[in-house]
Amino acid sequence: MKDLISVNQINEKSFYEIYEIFKDYKNKYKNGETKFSDLRGYSVLLPFFENSTRTRTSFELAGKILGADTINISSSSSSVKKGETLYDTIKTLEAMQSDFIVIRHYMSGAAALIAKQVKSHVINAGDGANEHPSQALLDAFTILEEKGKIEGLNILLVGDILHSRVARSDIKLFKKLGAKISICGPQTMLPRHIDVFELEDIYTDLDSAIKDKDVVIFLRIQLERQSKPFFSTLNEYSIKYGLNQNRINMLKEDAVIMHPGPVNRGVEIESELVYGNRSLILEQVENGLFTRMAIYKFLLSN
Amino acid sequence: MKDLISVNQINEKSFYEIYEIFKDYKNKYKNGETKFSDLRGYSVLLPFFENSTRTRTSFELAGKILGADTINISSSSSSVKKGETLYDTIKTLEAMQSDFIVIRHYMSGAAALIAKQVKSHVINAGDGANEHPSQALLDAFTILEEKGKIEGLNILLVGDILHSRVARSDIKLFKKLGAKISICGPQTMLPRHIDVFELEDIYTDLDSAIKDKDVVIFLRIQLERQSKPFFSTLNEYSIKYGLNQNRINMLKEDAVIMHPGPVNRGVEIESELVYGNRSLILEQVENGLFTRMAIYKFLLSN
Amino acid sequence: MKDLISVNQINEKSFYEIYEIFKDYKNKYKNGETKFSDLRGYSVLLPFFENSTRTRTSFELAGKILGADTINISSSSSSVKKGETLYDTIKTLEAMQSDFIVIRHYMSGAAALIAKQVKSHVINAGDGANEHPSQALLDAFTILEEKGKIEGLNILLVGDILHSRVARSDIKLFKKLGAKISICGPQTMLPRHIDVFELEDIYTDLDSAIKDKDVVIFLRIQLERQSKPFFSTLNEYSIKYGLNQNRINMLKEDAVIMHPGPVNRGVEIESELVYGNRSLILEQVENGLFTRMAIYKFLLSN
Repeated sequence: MKDLISVNQINEKSFYEIYEIFKDYKNKYKNGETKFSDLRGYSVLLPFFENSTRTRTSFELAGKILGADTINISSSSSSVKKGETLYDTIKTLEAMQSDFIVIRHYMSGAAALIAKQVKSHVINAGDGANEHPSQALLDAFTILEEKGKIEGLNILLVGDILHSRVARSDIKLFKKLGAKISICGPQTMLPRHIDVFELEDIYTDLDSAIKDKDVVIFLRIQLERQSKPFFSTLNEYSIKYGLNQNRINMLKEDAVIMHPGPVNRGVEIESELVYGNRSLILEQVENGLFTRMAIYKFLLSN
Repeated sequence: MKDLISVNQINEKSFYEIYEIFKDYKNKYKNGETKFSDLRGYSVLLPFFENSTRTRTSFELAGKILGADTINISSSSSSVKKGETLYDTIKTLEAMQSDFIVIRHYMSGAAALIAKQVKSHVINAGDGANEHPSQALLDAFTILEEKGKIEGLNILLVGDILHSRVARSDIKLFKKLGAKISICGPQTMLPRHIDVFELEDIYTDLDSAIKDKDVVIFLRIQLERQSKPFFSTLNEYSIKYGLNQNRINMLKEDAVIMHPGPVNRGVEIESELVYGNRSLILEQVENGLFTRMAIYKFLLSN
Repeated sequence: MKDLISVNQINEKSFYEIYEIFKDYKNKYKNGETKFSDLRGYSVLLPFFENSTRTRTSFELAGKILGADTINISSSSSSVKKGETLYDTIKTLEAMQSDFIVIRHYMSGAAALIAKQVKSHVINAGDGANEHPSQALLDAFTILEEKGKIEGLNILLVGDILHSRVARSDIKLFKKLGAKISICGPQTMLPRHIDVFELEDIYTDLDSAIKDKDVVIFLRIQLERQSKPFFSTLNEYSIKYGLNQNRINMLKEDAVIMHPGPVNRGVEIESELVYGNRSLILEQVENGLFTRMAIYKFLLSN
């Protein structure tokens, strides 16, 4: 496996292989081994064509901790402004002896397109509304740490399923690992051809949806991706699909909540619940670092 | 001492402890030891919510020289644009196992606020019009190197005292170390409740102010922070409060001048005097590097 | 030789010295030695006052591979916005103990100006329409690798010679190494005082120009530098001065084509020919990395 473009590439075997590397790094790091040389002499180039803090920082820091030379390339300061095509940008990076190209792009399929063209390991850090495989891995690892398994779990995704690359990657990966997936959101935010996902249930009412779930993942409302005014106000969305204390009380006793971040406080999750005792949001960020370290290592040794 | 938020945290003992570390690094560096491993395996995250070259570069380079992994986060390319709160940004950085968070923010109190929320060492690299403690330390070290002492020195700050975080930090630190502080500026740029600073003298006329001073610190006119047109022209400010050859001649023979930079040439200081033989401006920048190295080391070992 | 400001500084002896270092690094890298310590303990500061991906990335990565601490400084996030002069910015970087200052600036002569003011090694990464010496070196090395020599070669530069710093540096360097240089472009894009270059031929018709050349270098049309509408459409330029399959067939059998990038596809070169078997464009990028490594090393050891 040269690249990580889609969760489709990950089977159960490779998932658990990456998980083992993840656990190993996390364990060592927590025991004070905070610098490695696994990527010494390797370069990690990070062309990001969309703004990002957590994903870019996480991949950059993961590379540095492993000893790689990392280079940030943002669209605002790049040749993109000079009208260069994505293909040429990437061929140029490849010619600079890049070992890893971690790319975020606003266009679905961008990472797949370039992976075929270069020998470098290409990692999809988000491509349009398509996929975000490292997020799905870190979400799965976070659930696995908390619940001890993924198989058989009832997992609910809430919000804008239609536009969410996180949702697409999460659903595909969790299903492959044996979880039962349901989704909940306003009709306009649900995909039309839903049968492809083989979902357990589709809800438009959150109160009925959350009752028996083990994990509830709230998705970020990406206002920048909304093309129509689905809701007269965000407030209405929040009332219907946001997490509040009332809904926390409806959850199963051991249910946990997650969010890929950044949270729109008061929209998807009421402010005081963001880091509450049900929330795994900070665990997700922390695991994101070790997940990216594991992805580098896994691609390198395969 | 986990964080460096304000010069209020620094007593005489800790000041001289940091000074010893500073001297040690500077001495080693000047003797060719230009790379260290004191921060190897540590990460330094630099969220800067205001533009900066010298402070950011100085902290970043200081971290790298000590072997840390450093990550720049600028507000323009960050989740801030997605509406994330400062608190969430910082909690996210913390979850990524940050060891140091060096923050510049336009809001007074921002660094203090977050320092309470995270285990990382937080360093205030400037918060609104409030404080800039690393600048005060490097200013004090520069004076100490030049004059051999700070106690008993007559130090004058000239310019926009009211809006200057450098002035606030300098005054508090120098007073604690036994200097006699005076300020000089147009009435509209002087703080109203001046007694809290226990100043020696308050001048509105620069010619009378500079006569008997050992150190004169010219502050940058930060036009972006001025809310009212205090002066019809900058030229008028320059004539009344700028350093020119005439005023150089009024100084005590061994008096020195300083400026936190960047200088508005021809406004605070006449162009040909910026790096003149009285000026310690480049010494301040140089000492800035070693001061930041010392701050990292000091916080780590306390 | 402290600085690399202009190809005027490079004589045949120093050219081949740098070429030997280049070959040595490239050879080692290709044999798996991808990390060096030649610049360990040295800092490389990269103030870029114009957007750039390939040049900045290439210099930054070259520095990192050699073990240097590198710091990016872009005009958008810098004190430049606060009105600081170039001179003060550079004096500040110097005071931070910079060993190398790699500068790109929109003003011709900027790098030369500052090189005189600082002890740091200054490398000109492009100054206005004046020079781009590292590009000329990498172009020469690429030709040398491909052709085994430069002396006696017929080299043609096509396009906007007047505004191109690449053209100026290439022509001067190639002539010094014994090549015969011709230029081709619309009259409005040719320099008026052409005799200073001691050119072989000056063409306005590309078909006649390319017939007997060994190397044809297509220059980027930098629309941002054009002050007048020379052509009613880019399409007309492309028809008259662009490379297409027809013109490929007119080339000598062993002729090669080059371009400093980024290519305006369909303007200077027809899209399918950009990475065709005559093209050395990716070799140029690859050699750019090793050229910059060699420049650092050469300046350090001289």
